Parts: sequence; structure tokens; C-alpha cells
Amino acid sequence: MGIYMNNAATSWPKPEEVPKAMYQFMTSSGANLARGSSSSRDLETLDLVTTTRERLASFFGGYKDEDPRYVTFTSNVTEALNVVLKGFLRPSSRVVTTSMEHNAVMRPLRRLESERGVKVTVSPCFSDGTLDLERFEQALKEGQDLAVMSHCSNVCGTIQPIEEVSKLCRQYGVPLVLDSAQTAGVLDISARDLGLAALCFTGHKGLMGPQGTGGIVWEPSFAERVKPLVEGGTGSLSHLQVQPESLPDKFEAGTPNLPGIAGLSAALEWIRKTGLETIREKEKKLGELLLEAILDMKKLTLYGKKTMQGRLSVFAVNPQDGDNATLALKLADEYGIEARPGLHCAPVAHETLGSFPQGALRLSVGYFNTKEEISTVIKALKTLV
Amino acid sequence: MGIYMNNAATSWPKPEEVPKAMYQFMTSSGANLARGSSSSRDLETLDLVTTTRERLASFFGGYKDEDPRYVTFTSNVTEALNVVLKGFLRPSSRVVTTSMEHNAVMRPLRRLESERGVKVTVSPCFSDGTLDLERFEQALKEGQDLAVMSHCSNVCGTIQPIEEVSKLCRQYGVPLVLDSAQTAGVLDISARDLGLAALCFTGHKGLMGPQGTGGIVWEPSFAERVKPLVEGGTGSLSHLQVQPESLPDKFEAGTPNLPGIAGLSAALEWIRKTGLETIREKEKKLGELLLEAILDMKKLTLYGKKTMQGRLSVFAVNPQDGDNATLALKLADEYGIEARPGLHCAPVAHETLGSFPQGALRLSVGYFNTKEEISTVIKALKTLV
Repeated sequence: MGIYMNNAATSWPKPEEVPKAMYQFMTSSGANLARGSSSSRDLETLDLVTTTRERLASFFGGYKDEDPRYVTFTSNVTEALNVVLKGFLRPSSRVVTTSMEHNAVMRPLRRLESERGVKVTVSPCFSDGTLDLERFEQALKEGQDLAVMSHCSNVCGTIQPIEEVSKLCRQYGVPLVLDSAQTAGVLDISARDLGLAALCFTGHKGLMGPQGTGGIVWEPSFAERVKPLVEGGTGSLSHLQVQPESLPDKFEAGTPNLPGIAGLSAALEWIRKTGLETIREKEKKLGELLLEAILDMKKLTLYGKKTMQGRLSVFAVNPQDGDNATLALKLADEYGIEARPGLHCAPVAHETLGSFPQGALRLSVGYFNTKEEISTVIKALKTLV
Repeated sequence: MGIYMNNAATSWPKPEEVPKAMYQFMTSSGANLARGSSSSRDLETLDLVTTTRERLASFFGGYKDEDPRYVTFTSNVTEALNVVLKGFLRPSSRVVTTSMEHNAVMRPLRRLESERGVKVTVSPCFSDGTLDLERFEQALKEGQDLAVMSHCSNVCGTIQPIEEVSKLCRQYGVPLVLDSAQTAGVLDISARDLGLAALCFTGHKGLMGPQGTGGIVWEPSFAERVKPLVEGGTGSLSHLQVQPESLPDKFEAGTPNLPGIAGLSAALEWIRKTGLETIREKEKKLGELLLEAILDMKKLTLYGKKTMQGRLSVFAVNPQDGDNATLALKLADEYGIEARPGLHCAPVAHETLGSFPQGALRLSVGYFNTKEEISTVIKALKTLV
């Protein structure tokens, strides 16, 4: 096994409790949710799902005393963002986002722009990826129905000043939707403290769970204003041919990804035991080593922040001679180092950083990386560049 | 462990290869799809997903020589139906369905009716659940843009005459969408032979895979006319802020449920080795035993077909004295038999069968049930009713 430096795509490896919990669910429980009798197995499944909601509500500072009903499961953060954006924005609504977004935000917005006439404002960021708060406030002043943004760039690791953003959004009465794809499981996030309308998360990155999981933590009155994206059987109010209005059923139709939820639940418990602070500090220390070495390499261009302040350990670089795809291939072939070249599904972010259209090589550190691995990566980069 | 008679909700147990494949993916592969470098692990993941698409295209008689690109993964059949219905039906489109549908069809249609002014015709079925083909043809004659129906009732096991339906739909030029939730993995279904516009399936019932999997087999030109429900990163055409038009990316944004796909793939291979005919025959024989006994019990009302012809081994019954919820509870508590009471997310079907609003007790047989279990179920019913 090589050196995994692609944790911004999916964290790897997962804590061993995660696959074990999934295996356990598949072989010993396996009952459907609210679709059986009240046998012990059905109750176990209900308990699993409720417990996981509770863990998420607690982890993300959920509303109404961390009421688990205000946690919705989706299959990934992309679906979560689609649920919120397509369910909330009406014809000619105005929405502001940033010039550092992933296509999980940009593509639904561009579709809504062309189809519903939603007015999309892309608020500019500085060349290190940080949001220009003055310009953002200007956009809010002009009148917005919604703000949506990524907490941290998936390309270069720049963290947005979300406290200031949330303060401005509250000041102008604009609901704020946060894409926590890169930060959940690394930074402390409280939906309640930030006054988020919706916090969208994925299960398989920092949260250490399996692919196929994700969700939304809702501010209750905002959730009421959002129409569901998917409707169908909920195992509740089955006499009705229309979707129930109450949460969590409103946004969850059909059989959920139960083994995935079992894995995510175990992952959340692993994070609780390990400690967010411990995870963050370890990733930061490894990132510092890598950053220092990158800054030393004169033939490597680093995009985004040049310090560890205001960033996560996600680094976007380009060789001054040659291209990032070749570099990635050589890292993989010659050193077994896995990293991701290209545009990272975020063309607008690369435009902001000055790395469009060629993209960059992204090296993203995870909790299970070691100092020795980082040293090998540094040596490999020095040799190849 | 008790006796599991709730296979129409989710099949149980799963073949041991299924959890093993998921565990294997989570512990040994685990790379994201098209979001890494071209390391061996990334290529393994790409191979897993492509192989599973190929297996599904082959299993369901996919179009264009079973081209795997025309297979879309979703998280369940409900999402699959929502993708097709919400992506195809435009304001004032006309759609015909049946009076035996699950809420996975009815709830999206009712939403489209109220929101887009889609004209929904519910074509009547006879009291045994079979579609009245004359009335259906009448509805087609009046002009429809789409037909959508369940292949088999999830309540009472009645199979629709899908060959005749598909012939009529072709005759009147109406695209036909099939909900195969209850039949995939039991009956032979060829999307191509039936000329289906879209075949929607779930992974966790007859297909023996994990919850969290499902999908669509598309007729290529129909897929072109459908707008995606979810947009976002696809790991392809990343320079574009709009969703790619080419399949499979058009309908698949964000990280897919990779461990689920690994499980589904193993399940499909298990079905191939076991043989659909073997599965079908075993379920039929067990169903025959149960049906005969039910028909003998004078204090038990059976809904739907009274013979094994034109049905699967899913039985809806009500005690003439007492209610189905109490009966389900006693079966569970006193005999460890798991069955599902109530409305089964299909109020319109229960109306058709004459079991609304009280619902019924559903006993649904699976491949892993045994003769001895069926005997115990029969004895329990005789004692309790």
C-alpha cells in the first residue's frame, strides 16, 4: 500500500470500527426502517438511525436542544446541497455564493439560473481564496434571499471567515447555507451558534464514514420553507398520497442507506473518542511539515495561503516545468503516492486562484498519515520537480 | 433469530458474499471514483463501478448491446422514480399510472400535479390488483406523455400483464416506466424486449444487495429528454459549471455509494450463479404452501389473487376478528415471526383491494425461507386467528 494524500476526495483508511459496524449491520440486523413489525430487529434498526441522528445533532450543534428530527440523511453532500437549493429557491429568487465554490454548489445554481431565472451573484474572493467581506456585504445589501458557500476550499484548503459571514448574514436577514464537505470532522462547527439555515455535510471525508452517506442539519423554520426533492414512501402517514410535512420524513423517502448509517455512526463515535482537537492538531502538524517544504521548492508554485493560519492541510501546487497530471502520475508510479491532479470539480475556484484551466496537483493530508509519509512525499516532490 | 416474512420490505438474510464484498471494499480499496490519481486503487474502484454497471445492463437487458453507460445508480428505487418523473414531466404533461401503485410513484405524481399542473390519470385495476387493460388503452387513446407503473404489487403480489401493457404503450407511442421494486431478482425482465423508456430498480430486495442502492436502466433517447434531479461534481468535464449531458455522469453527481455498489455487485454475481429460475421456483413452492393454508383458514381474508398464477409470494391478509397490527405483534412476540401490518406505503392499492384504511398483514416469502418456517407460520396463523 502506498501513501495516501487524497483525503480531500475521501478519507483513507477508515477507523476499523466503521467497516465492522457495516458488516455487523448486514449480517446481524439488516431490518428495514419503519417498514416491518415491531420485532427486536426492527427496533434495533430504528435505534441505530435515531442514535446516529442524535450523534449528528450533537456533533453539529443542532437546533432545539439538538433535536434529532432536524437531521436529514442524504447520500452525499451534493445531494444535500441540491435538496436545500432546489427546494428553497423560487423563480427569480436571489442567491449569493462565492468564487471559490465546488461544482456541488455551482452546478445546481447554474441550473436554477437558466431554468427558474434565479439571480446568482458570485461574490469575489482574494487570490488566496479568502472571501472579500466588503464585496460580500455589498451583495447582501443589494438584497439576497439566500447565501450559500463552502466552509473551506477543496482545492487549496483556505478556510472562509465563517463567523464574520454568519454575522453579516444575520445582520441583513439572509439565511446562510454552509457546505462543510472539507471541514466536518476537523473544525468545530455549531449550526446553532453560527445561526445556519442549513448545514450540509458528507459522511466519507473528515467524518470518517463510508461513501454513500451525508446529510443536512436544519434550522427548523427554514426547513419548513423548503420543498422536498424526493418524495415517496416514508413508512409514516401511509394513508396520504402526499409527502408528510414533518421532519425527518419530509426529506427522506424510500429505504435509507442503513449499512452506511451504521458505518457513519461508528465513525462519529470514533471521532468523539479520539477528539476533534487531536485530529485537527495532528493534521496541522503534518501540514506544517509539508507546507514548509513546498515553500522551499522554488520550482513549485503553491496556490492559496502561504501559512498554516486560516487553512486546512490541503495544498494545491503546480510544477513550473511540466504539468500536474504528469506529476501525479509519476508520484503514483514511482513512489506509490496518491494525489489528485486537475480541476477538482471546482473550475471557479481555480479561476480565482489563477490555476485555470490547467488545474493543479492537490496533496491533502489526513489523520492517518505519518511524519515518515510526509518526508517521503517531500523527497519525491524534490526529485520530480 | 426468528422467522423473517418481510422480504417485500427488504430481503433477509443477504448472501454472505454481499457483506464480505462491502467489508473488502472498505478495508482494502476504498478509493473515490474518478477523483484520485490513476493509482491502482483508483483503477480498482473504477473497475468495480463499471463491472457493476455491466452486470446490471446484462441482467436487465440494457439497450445498445447492454452498454453500461445507460445504467444510473441511485440510492433506492424511490429516488430512481423521482429522477425519471420529475426530470421528464413538464408543466401540463399527461401521465397515466395505475390504482395499485406504491407511494414511490404516487407521491411524486401528486406533487407534480399540484406544482406543475401535470395531468395524472389513475387507470383502474380489478379488485385482485390486475390492471384493467381496456380502461388502460382508453387512457392511452386520450393522449398521454408517459406511463408509469409497478410491475408487481408490494401489497398483495399481483403481477401486472407487462407484455400487454408494453405492447399497448408502443402502439400509442407512450414511453413506459417500470417500477421493478418487487420483481427484480425474481422475474426475467428485459428493458429492451419490453421497450421500456426506463426501468427503475432497488438493490436491497430481490437483488439481494444492501440498502442504499438502486438505479435506472435507460432507453438512450429517452434519457436525453430527462433533466437531472441532482447536479454537482462528476469528476468529468470539470471545467464546466453545468452538468455534463453524457451518461452516466448526467444523472450521477457527487460521490456514489461505493461500498453499496460493491455489495450489489457481489449480490448480482450470487444471483447469476444461483439462477433466477431456481430462486423463482423456490419462492413459488414456499408461496404455494402458504397460499393453500391461507385459503383454508375461514377466519382470514386474503386480498388479491387466490392462485399462484400471475402473482409472487407476497400475501396480504386480515383476520375477520381483530386487526392486522395486533396479529403482527402477536406473530412477532409469540412466534418470532416478522411480518408487516398496515398500509405498506400504498394507500391507493389498499383502496383497490378493499383493505383501506385498515390495511392488512403482509407475509412476504424470500429465497432463504424454508418449508419448516412456512409450516410454523401456518400453525401460528391457525392458532392466532
